[in-house]
Amino acid sequence: MNFNEKLMRITEKNNSLLCVGLDIDKEKMPKFLFDSRDNPFLEFNTQIIDATKNVVCAYKLNMAFYEVFGKKGFDLLEKTIEHIPKEIVIILDGKRNDIGNTAQKYAQTLFDVLHADAVTVNPYLGKDTVQPFLEYKDKCSFILCRTSNPSAVDFQNLTVSKTPLYQMVAQKIKEWNIYGNCGAVVGATYPEELKIIRKILGDDIPLLIPGVGKQGGCVEKAVEYGTNSAGNLAVINSSRDIIFAGNNEDFAEYSSKAAESLRNEINTYR
Amino acid sequence: MNFNEKLMRITEKNNSLLCVGLDIDKEKMPKFLFDSRDNPFLEFNTQIIDATKNVVCAYKLNMAFYEVFGKKGFDLLEKTIEHIPKEIVIILDGKRNDIGNTAQKYAQTLFDVLHADAVTVNPYLGKDTVQPFLEYKDKCSFILCRTSNPSAVDFQNLTVSKTPLYQMVAQKIKEWNIYGNCGAVVGATYPEELKIIRKILGDDIPLLIPGVGKQGGCVEKAVEYGTNSAGNLAVINSSRDIIFAGNNEDFAEYSSKAAESLRNEINTYR
Repeated sequence: MNFNEKLMRITEKNNSLLCVGLDIDKEKMPKFLFDSRDNPFLEFNTQIIDATKNVVCAYKLNMAFYEVFGKKGFDLLEKTIEHIPKEIVIILDGKRNDIGNTAQKYAQTLFDVLHADAVTVNPYLGKDTVQPFLEYKDKCSFILCRTSNPSAVDFQNLTVSKTPLYQMVAQKIKEWNIYGNCGAVVGATYPEELKIIRKILGDDIPLLIPGVGKQGGCVEKAVEYGTNSAGNLAVINSSRDIIFAGNNEDFAEYSSKAAESLRNEINTYR
Repeated sequence: MNFNEKLMRITEKNNSLLCVGLDIDKEKMPKFLFDSRDNPFLEFNTQIIDATKNVVCAYKLNMAFYEVFGKKGFDLLEKTIEHIPKEIVIILDGKRNDIGNTAQKYAQTLFDVLHADAVTVNPYLGKDTVQPFLEYKDKCSFILCRTSNPSAVDFQNLTVSKTPLYQMVAQKIKEWNIYGNCGAVVGATYPEELKIIRKILGDDIPLLIPGVGKQGGCVEKAVEYGTNSAGNLAVINSSRDIIFAGNNEDFAEYSSKAAESLRNEINTYR
């Protein structure tokens, strides 16, 4: 089963385009976990997963939040991934890339060692650096196209022969999609660009859309512009608003409610 | 002591602009290490370090080659770093970046947890994502400007209002160098671009220059175009040609000779 099929299946089963970002952060997590639990981060993740697994299509793990714990972080990453039901898409968000033989090692780490279904990849180094990721034909590589942060404009909006760079990147992604396993990262904070990118990419390329919630992206526009013509292949990520919704022993219930609520809000616009 | 001072000191002491890349790779390493040693990778790195520490200014550890071993790789990374003499510059080459709060975690991992002197950073996401790295004022962030791989042209050579993107990146690096801790990565495989970039950056910004050796970059041009007007602040990396120079029990001697030879070749052009 290739990535798009897996995504479509879980989207249909859970009626959801919602991706929950497991961006663990001690300062934002319920305090009681650190008083009473051996492995508070794993306890947090497993409770969040158990509470939200029926209303999401994907979980996204941002590598930076795990790497900062060194060896223990790697262990936590592995154990969290093990706890995610097999039918749900796992996105490892490391925004990696490097020249060819090195990119191959990154791809191997993320897909083979950590069993990601999808990864995020930085395009600045060009095609030969993206290719080792694309060789994993049943996986998906979400290539950064239009990121959600304010300084995204610094380079991504530069105009190249009348075309902004991010659109050149989108055109390349379409060109690179020979195995049907390219995706694109596009921030919900830039809805007009999202609309243009979906138009360039067509109906078969999934979009990973961060930036709703705290960053200020509009859910309605993320859905309207980000989905394909069948209302699918958009993975709308929310991290902090969901995983840090509650602060006490019942925090997972709050996460569950927040996830269900956002899933439903997304669906009203599909 | 800030990064440029540390680099200048070791450059002077070892009379060297040479950086050795510790890109471990089982298939290229001496076979006997895997028959006879408990931790062949650490044994390899420590022997290479011992054999080359008097002729280098820096060691560069490419994160991908360590991450692929999971927890063990992190341990190996830490132990290798511990073995590098304090006066030698440690460059952790992960080409990381992400939006602000995430970039901060990457910076923390590389500078605080792993004690890097310098890191490599991908600029595609723009200034607010580079800033968390720059907040480490005594460290150096080598920002990808012109990478050494063939597909570097895909985006880096796109022309923006008559200026190629990589030159726009160079201009931004100069602008971002408020704390004097920016560097730039420029591949030796593109000598003309290297010349232009050094001109844009001036004399105070160090260049990390990969691509001599196997990738085909010319050492003479790397030195001529990459150094500042005093013949300094260029860090010329070689990985495979040095660390895989020998294949038997005396492999480290071969590495030592290869490093000394390249150090001396570099110096003939300074």
